[in-house]
Amino acid sequence: MKCVNPKGFLYSAVKAAIRKPDRYDLAIIYSAAEANIAGTFTTNKIKAAPVQLDIRQTRHGRGQVIVVNSGNANACTGRRGMDDAVEITKQVAGYLHIDPSLVSICSTGVIGIPLPMQRIRKKIPQLVSHLGKSEVEDVARAMMTTDTFPKISGRKVKIGNKTGSITGICKGAGMICPSMATMLCFIMTDIEVERETLRISLREAVQQSFNRIVVDGDMSTNDTVLIMANGMLGNKKITDKGKSYRAFRDSLFGITEDLAKMIVRDGEGASKFIEIIVKGARTEREAQKAAYAVAKSYLVKTALHGNDANWGRIMAALGYSGSMIREEKTDIYFGTIKVVHAGTATGTDNKAAHYLKRKDISITIDLKIGKASSYVYTCDLTEEYVKINAAYRT
Amino acid sequence: MKCVNPKGFLYSAVKAAIRKPDRYDLAIIYSAAEANIAGTFTTNKIKAAPVQLDIRQTRHGRGQVIVVNSGNANACTGRRGMDDAVEITKQVAGYLHIDPSLVSICSTGVIGIPLPMQRIRKKIPQLVSHLGKSEVEDVARAMMTTDTFPKISGRKVKIGNKTGSITGICKGAGMICPSMATMLCFIMTDIEVERETLRISLREAVQQSFNRIVVDGDMSTNDTVLIMANGMLGNKKITDKGKSYRAFRDSLFGITEDLAKMIVRDGEGASKFIEIIVKGARTEREAQKAAYAVAKSYLVKTALHGNDANWGRIMAALGYSGSMIREEKTDIYFGTIKVVHAGTATGTDNKAAHYLKRKDISITIDLKIGKASSYVYTCDLTEEYVKINAAYRT
Repeated sequence: MKCVNPKGFLYSAVKAAIRKPDRYDLAIIYSAAEANIAGTFTTNKIKAAPVQLDIRQTRHGRGQVIVVNSGNANACTGRRGMDDAVEITKQVAGYLHIDPSLVSICSTGVIGIPLPMQRIRKKIPQLVSHLGKSEVEDVARAMMTTDTFPKISGRKVKIGNKTGSITGICKGAGMICPSMATMLCFIMTDIEVERETLRISLREAVQQSFNRIVVDGDMSTNDTVLIMANGMLGNKKITDKGKSYRAFRDSLFGITEDLAKMIVRDGEGASKFIEIIVKGARTEREAQKAAYAVAKSYLVKTALHGNDANWGRIMAALGYSGSMIREEKTDIYFGTIKVVHAGTATGTDNKAAHYLKRKDISITIDLKIGKASSYVYTCDLTEEYVKINAAYRT
Repeated sequence: MKCVNPKGFLYSAVKAAIRKPDRYDLAIIYSAAEANIAGTFTTNKIKAAPVQLDIRQTRHGRGQVIVVNSGNANACTGRRGMDDAVEITKQVAGYLHIDPSLVSICSTGVIGIPLPMQRIRKKIPQLVSHLGKSEVEDVARAMMTTDTFPKISGRKVKIGNKTGSITGICKGAGMICPSMATMLCFIMTDIEVERETLRISLREAVQQSFNRIVVDGDMSTNDTVLIMANGMLGNKKITDKGKSYRAFRDSLFGITEDLAKMIVRDGEGASKFIEIIVKGARTEREAQKAAYAVAKSYLVKTALHGNDANWGRIMAALGYSGSMIREEKTDIYFGTIKVVHAGTATGTDNKAAHYLKRKDISITIDLKIGKASSYVYTCDLTEEYVKINAAYRT
């Protein structure tokens, strides 16, 4: 776990007993200077109150504080849910003497139960006064739900003659965790990045990382990725193009890819990390659709769990993916072992089954129709997943 | 199990050791008179050889024989697969002295392995000579894969002053079974039905039944429904509209609904039968999309398995279904217990959890936007499902 500390960011995590006593479940990330902020949010039509609020808060592109809690998603909580989210941001802003429009808030946990506001209100003064006494890892821990480890990734970046830092933390142990909600990711950097450039870089980074992972195919009400760039490095502001831009962008992509992979590895009940590559598609969109269909198939995921080189299930998933596919052209590889040539078996199932015993699996599908390609990361489907999700709330 | 015997249909089932020795795995359904035939087939782009062949065979609307085997799907078997399917239909036609264009063939079982033609060829004479010595239930058994019981439904129908019969059999213990392929259904009737009317009735019946069930959301390469109407009742031919048409249609709908429900009850590892009703949608299509999203959600299915009234997962699934939904309008009922009113909790989760202990569950979602409704039948997702599908081929 590389811990890189971008200048000017302070952290605080406290125990507010939001769902369970005696665990860190409420935290803030504070930038000493007002920062440029950008966000991407769930496309689920049911959006938790904090998501609705953050979409408004980040629209003007300026921010200074992110509040996060676990244990309660503040989703499907109606009018009261929005009132609660607004109140928390106002309280925090008040104690910090900043404008409430600079505060974003993210929640993750059970859906449909109002936040325990009494306990939260009481903790806010301590939360703020504690700033600087926690590490970024403490925040990563405070936002864990069914995650089994905190997820952090950082990079140093050469920007001109200066060295900037980017650090990202995230949580999410299912594409959506149980009734617990999903994927949250916060990225902090001291590099000065122009607002629109920040927005575009984040969108692209998310597209290449969090939008490429499938655990169970469910999409949460709370997914949020936020990036704050406070410019305290004092670099020449990064706008578009150029060497500095590429250096920043590459590091950002690296961090979001690291974090996305960690989420898959920590997928509920997962025992394998699976990369699905589709090549030779007509368009990138079709390559992606095909990869998704395979990654989402219950049958493919259970077969891989059982080390069964059952490529017929992959063919069936490709067939209903909606992408163009010609059975008689399709090749499939497990690792470097070609299991399907031109739509039919090569007789290597036993060799492939041996390969599947690994923890990291790569499956390549060559549709041999066009030149576009894409990929998706996923995990296997295990009895443990069912156990976790059948038992979760009860 | 109602066994109704339409006139003029003879059955035969034999043991051909297609995948395992000593089980019935090859069968034919023979109509003494040429019949009108109609079919509906998988929309998967990867279609097994027999499906491709049957689409051609049934186009002219006349048929007399259905051959079916389990143990091998004859899918992803390339050119050879088609040659094999054609050869079997020709052999059977030869022994029966009928035109090969009157023979359809359906296969279910593992994908990607050629049919054991030597063993099948040897059995065809016995298969034909045995006609009339088997019951329809024997055919239903011969086509079972992971099914735990044979699926049969029949109805007597008043047509004018005569009483006709319709019998349907099917198999399929997942929307798709493991690498075993899917759902096959054959319907026999002695009622004379005009070709186009037969086609339309079947399409509508499938739409209301087999297209309403979700076990795991995977769609097979082999799904086929065939109906043969041989007219041996001697009724006035049913064309469109009228009392006889309605009587025939209602019985056909009843049979396909019976069979579809049996498939869900026999879903791999399923412990509960779940009906999901969506009301108040803008259009029927949107109602259906919403019901499907809920029925396919891993999280909803595991929660129901765990008797957890976790309606937040239902809200999340509705939110990403692509259908119009207004959080603040949505009501959700488990049985008659209202668990969500206008998008928020009613505090009845414990009462609802008690209801969920039943084997038959009904969930009603009222979107309160429009007047359209739809429904889907599904089952829960259990550890047993993962076990069956991880272990299947190995």
